Amino acid sequence: MSPDVINLTSLFDGGSSEHQIQHRVDLFNKWKITPGSKILEIGCGQGDCTLVAAYILGDQGHVTAIDPAPKDYGAPMTLGEAQDKLRQTPIGDRMTFYQSNLQDFLDSGASEQVYDYAMLVHSVWYLPSVEVLQKMLAALRGRTKCLLIAEYSLDIRGDIAALPHLLAAISQAEFNSRSNILDQDDNIQSIISQQTICALAQTAGWELQKEEIVESPQGQEDAEWEVHRVLSKEYSIRSESHGDPSRQNFANALIDAVAQSTRVIGPNPKLRTLSTWLGSWV
Amino acid sequence: MSPDVINLTSLFDGGSSEHQIQHRVDLFNKWKITPGSKILEIGCGQGDCTLVAAYILGDQGHVTAIDPAPKDYGAPMTLGEAQDKLRQTPIGDRMTFYQSNLQDFLDSGASEQVYDYAMLVHSVWYLPSVEVLQKMLAALRGRTKCLLIAEYSLDIRGDIAALPHLLAAISQAEFNSRSNILDQDDNIQSIISQQTICALAQTAGWELQKEEIVESPQGQEDAEWEVHRVLSKEYSIRSESHGDPSRQNFANALIDAVAQSTRVIGPNPKLRTLSTWLGSWV
Repeated sequence: MSPDVINLTSLFDGGSSEHQIQHRVDLFNKWKITPGSKILEIGCGQGDCTLVAAYILGDQGHVTAIDPAPKDYGAPMTLGEAQDKLRQTPIGDRMTFYQSNLQDFLDSGASEQVYDYAMLVHSVWYLPSVEVLQKMLAALRGRTKCLLIAEYSLDIRGDIAALPHLLAAISQAEFNSRSNILDQDDNIQSIISQQTICALAQTAGWELQKEEIVESPQGQEDAEWEVHRVLSKEYSIRSESHGDPSRQNFANALIDAVAQSTRVIGPNPKLRTLSTWLGSWV
Repeated sequence: MSPDVINLTSLFDGGSSEHQIQHRVDLFNKWKITPGSKILEIGCGQGDCTLVAAYILGDQGHVTAIDPAPKDYGAPMTLGEAQDKLRQTPIGDRMTFYQSNLQDFLDSGASEQVYDYAMLVHSVWYLPSVEVLQKMLAALRGRTKCLLIAEYSLDIRGDIAALPHLLAAISQAEFNSRSNILDQDDNIQSIISQQTICALAQTAGWELQKEEIVESPQGQEDAEWEVHRVLSKEYSIRSESHGDPSRQNFANALIDAVAQSTRVIGPNPKLRTLSTWLGSWV
């Protein structure tokens, strides 16, 4: 663990694991953000990335972090609790949190006219649809100098231990692609590929500067979380209560594929979280 | 290549590749069918498996091979052409072909009252639904002493080169799980897992004797065929003309995942066909 990760994990005091912090430090190491910048973070959730951004920006920088989820959403710590905890750290005054969607926020008096960076870090797969992302990318034109997006890659890059995470993501996206699904409990709503993100950004007028890949640190928990969810009894029950038989058969096969892919890794599976794809645009 | 494969490939005279024949010989080597038996083969298609079964059964055995597809279905050789070719081989009198679904055939005067073996070799994923398989397994009770099923496994068993085939199968099954799809062009209609096959067989009263896995021979073309299909322009166009936007986004992500999984294998990808799972029941 680097000194930065030790500092940050200790700053958040149990609010996030060292692996989650390490992963976000790895992203910023690629992005080389200018200290003192103003960042708009879209879909901040519990604020893991907000914390890392605030730390790296230094005392002249600021992160405005927005998320439409209610403050009492999330477990074991709610968004509100986590954000309060972050605000109380020694770098808490570098962060401001708003419960808002992007368009409402940009239209409000709280928003800067132009940010140095707007970023979506692992919030794209939370979006309900490609169309929502398309609108967001259009709305951001003229409101930020640089656009940064980080999301999991659909490519396991030869690492068989990442296959269960990929298949679990496909399974969750299958459920959430059904019509009339109001249940928004999954961490993965739609698996939007890097090809699609690039195409949408181009349509919205963004010019791609760079694409990169960041491997997940060993121990990053996302694979375990998503696979565990898909293999839970509640998940199967929910799937079967929301689809026609043909759809359910397909969904069941995906769940079986997740189960088999975990078995092949061994008696004590060490699942690997998918690599993250990074894009930056001006 | 074993002498059997050389003999069989030469018997069929270009009707099938040595890899396809080798794969079916590998299946029968596991199953150890008693020579002289009477087999009912369900979903024989172009008859690759019919040929191998007839060869292995010897001159006292017989394969009754049924398929509901029209005789002019299939390319580059139609079912009718391939079956005629097989009938003209020196072991052609060990095979009889009928264009029929299972229930109609069992109800007809053409069927034996009881077969030694009924087998489905790579025909399960051609079926439109789990429900159709359920009915077939029930209809076969009392009409065969032994039930044999071979179908691809949803498990790539640690071989990254088989991932494109798995993802292409998921993609085709996604399309065919949509409601009101009348297009039956895909080789894969539904990815029914080995867990589901076992559960259905048990419900129908079958007692599982053995499960085995057969690796595909290097060069077996199925992975190439299915991946090529999913990555074709026509496939994307068809997908986009049959779904709501949410469904299409999911389908597009699956196609992108197939494309990426082929790229990781290298500049000259050698795709591997999925392993085959075998079950036998009495």
